[in-house]
Amino acid sequence: MPALKYAPTLRYRLAVVPPYRKELSLDLYELTMSQVFWRRGMDGMATFSLFFRGYPDNRSYYVACGIDEAVDFLLNFRFGPEDIGSLRETTPLSEDFLTYLAKVRFTGDVRAVPEGTIVFADEPLLEVTAPIIEAQIVETMLLNIVTSATLFATKASRIVEAAAGRPVVDFGSRRTHSEESAVKAARTGYIAGFAGTSNLKAAALYGIPAFGTMAHSFVQAFGDEYSAFDAYANEFPGSTTLLVDTYDTLEGVRNAISVAAAARKRGASINAIRLDSGDLGQLAKDARSLLDAAGYPDVQIMASGGLDEYSIRDLIASGAPIDAFGVGTRFGTSADAPYIDSVYKLVELDGKPVFKLSANKRTLPWAKTVMRRFINDHMAGDLVINCAQSSPTPEYVELSRNVVTDGINRFPVDSIETVRRRVAEHLNSLSPEFRGLVNALEYPVKLAPELDLTRESFG
Amino acid sequence: MPALKYAPTLRYRLAVVPPYRKELSLDLYELTMSQVFWRRGMDGMATFSLFFRGYPDNRSYYVACGIDEAVDFLLNFRFGPEDIGSLRETTPLSEDFLTYLAKVRFTGDVRAVPEGTIVFADEPLLEVTAPIIEAQIVETMLLNIVTSATLFATKASRIVEAAAGRPVVDFGSRRTHSEESAVKAARTGYIAGFAGTSNLKAAALYGIPAFGTMAHSFVQAFGDEYSAFDAYANEFPGSTTLLVDTYDTLEGVRNAISVAAAARKRGASINAIRLDSGDLGQLAKDARSLLDAAGYPDVQIMASGGLDEYSIRDLIASGAPIDAFGVGTRFGTSADAPYIDSVYKLVELDGKPVFKLSANKRTLPWAKTVMRRFINDHMAGDLVINCAQSSPTPEYVELSRNVVTDGINRFPVDSIETVRRRVAEHLNSLSPEFRGLVNALEYPVKLAPELDLTRESFG
Repeated sequence: MPALKYAPTLRYRLAVVPPYRKELSLDLYELTMSQVFWRRGMDGMATFSLFFRGYPDNRSYYVACGIDEAVDFLLNFRFGPEDIGSLRETTPLSEDFLTYLAKVRFTGDVRAVPEGTIVFADEPLLEVTAPIIEAQIVETMLLNIVTSATLFATKASRIVEAAAGRPVVDFGSRRTHSEESAVKAARTGYIAGFAGTSNLKAAALYGIPAFGTMAHSFVQAFGDEYSAFDAYANEFPGSTTLLVDTYDTLEGVRNAISVAAAARKRGASINAIRLDSGDLGQLAKDARSLLDAAGYPDVQIMASGGLDEYSIRDLIASGAPIDAFGVGTRFGTSADAPYIDSVYKLVELDGKPVFKLSANKRTLPWAKTVMRRFINDHMAGDLVINCAQSSPTPEYVELSRNVVTDGINRFPVDSIETVRRRVAEHLNSLSPEFRGLVNALEYPVKLAPELDLTRESFG
Repeated sequence: MPALKYAPTLRYRLAVVPPYRKELSLDLYELTMSQVFWRRGMDGMATFSLFFRGYPDNRSYYVACGIDEAVDFLLNFRFGPEDIGSLRETTPLSEDFLTYLAKVRFTGDVRAVPEGTIVFADEPLLEVTAPIIEAQIVETMLLNIVTSATLFATKASRIVEAAAGRPVVDFGSRRTHSEESAVKAARTGYIAGFAGTSNLKAAALYGIPAFGTMAHSFVQAFGDEYSAFDAYANEFPGSTTLLVDTYDTLEGVRNAISVAAAARKRGASINAIRLDSGDLGQLAKDARSLLDAAGYPDVQIMASGGLDEYSIRDLIASGAPIDAFGVGTRFGTSADAPYIDSVYKLVELDGKPVFKLSANKRTLPWAKTVMRRFINDHMAGDLVINCAQSSPTPEYVELSRNVVTDGINRFPVDSIETVRRRVAEHLNSLSPEFRGLVNALEYPVKLAPELDLTRESFG
């Protein structure tokens, strides 16, 4: 990856930002169903399995994210007095059940793949085993947390793939579906290989490099482009990226060259120019020629403006001399596939398998674990097995881990850099035919015989 | 709208839930640009205009939402000590500028349309006039807040239109792009005409009716469907909706009928059944026949499962006897149009117009206001004028209001019911040809001559 010279890459401490309290953001039915369970003394151990059914268009793998947040959510789960007060007024729940609810904590187990693991359809990302009420009432937010983070991470990993080694920066904060989504997209983008983000809260919370250039309004506020560029280059000599398309783009490049010349006289330099509109491929070529001819081969070219994995792939294929990409809206909304068909299904109750008879939506019974086989360091096929009935096959590596036992965490949370390395390593070991942007082959995932047989008999 | 009998519609107080602090979630460049402005003493009064360029596919109007939250964000804007500490470590900002930033408050003016106003492309939803730094640093979050809320409200209003008077309930929380998005979708869905939401935090925060049915896991936990239905009907006699598709759907309807018969003997009743998979239109017809033949014409049928405005329109057109709809993923991600091309453009500086010369992305200069003409209570065309240069034309109603002056709010926030009524009234006055789900006509929006001339001269 070429050095990023157009923006600072400082390191940050974790800022004190209050987390989003999510307990109350659950579907009413989780609680009405639970009141029935409670009234009837139904406290059996239930296993719910969180997995994805199939793939959105053009997807062939998932970067599992949100696992660590989901575990954190479970470990800290509680309804506070204000929550109970709200529930009293917004729901038909009975007073005795509300009294019980105030005391509910998560006391169960969690099996999950590590944050950043590459997973496939039908493979459980996370399984909760707990008394059925504890496992049921967390459904809404577990799905929300894991699905949204995986959605962004998967989209980002495709963009990184398309950029083929050139740095990509997240600029999506203004168009995500909330502020929380902006922070989540920035975090998962970095995990999936982005160089950084423009979002300063994500930078502060997760230690992600922050990047920034300038807006058209900045240039307009100065009236003339040269003065705007010169003022910025003087203020931020180590991290100057000049936005050249406010008026005429190539005229903008010439102004950038003049400012670079002035900077050179001061012993300084500018880092890059940014193209944000027009025919980015042609403009990049023209800008490169102008910069090289003027003696500034080190000034890089960044492109942005409606980019995604498809347009980045096409720009690179056309030979556009673009050194870095900024991706905003289409990343921050996962625009070509804005959702994943995620489910959280009851698969085991009191040690017995649970399944639906309806043929159109299968749910594989039993608590499961995901096994992966490697050949010459390449992923050669996964196997999903019943935790209880199958013993791990020696040539397979087990991906799922017992993360939480009896409500107590067994693993420290990985650092974001560790998770980022995991994603890179996993993708490296996934052959290109399984991770193409379009028409990728379906990676082989086998279901162990006891799961398959159950499906056969009842499907 | 038929009475909703399958879920409670209690009224709630506003719960104490901490708001999401959003100040730090801004793009780095807002602050680096501002440091340059500050260093050079550039404190001119700037007007930035927030509007949408064109429409996503199949959209022909917008339900402006997020205005009230945006104003609230501005009025409470401040960087706290932790924020400044984070900025010190995540950015190249200078210490003297950080000292200045800690004191920045919003002291400017806001012109905006009321929450829930129907607006069109090119019409400013909100304009900020303030010293340029104050107006610039709020760009990222103003765009995020207004765009995301408008996206959801607009999607919801299309779904309400398709449902043609039948109640629609938001079930989207598990698939939105964050927990905050779930709450936002629930709020804006209700504003746009939904009957309620499954999300209890939204119910508590905004006094929205909460709805819920049951999940497949509930039926599975009982093993047999009749027992599950009967247990729920006994626990919640006033609000029982039975999910009938866990195993065989029509068998499920027969079990629901048996439970309804048992309830009738107790002097109680069940409210509805829910279909969540399969051929919803045919199943609804078959279920209706079974229910009617058994003497339960009052038991309603709710449908859910991958629904959006297109499938709801088709179901109703096919004569499916569905009384209410639950919409989840496709609403909660605005799946067919997951973003709006929103912009926040510098349009006036120190009383002078600001514009870009590039032809591909026009920005209309001048601070503006939106005027609307009515003929026989129907919207007959809008006019966007320069606030300063044009005097309001008598036959037009002015939509934009001076909401904030010198950093002080001039209007109380409308209640959610007031906003909801506004949306309904506005849409009622918009002729059907301008609000069709597909191929709608483009509603006429005229730009006043002085805006048009400027564009002509420089476009």
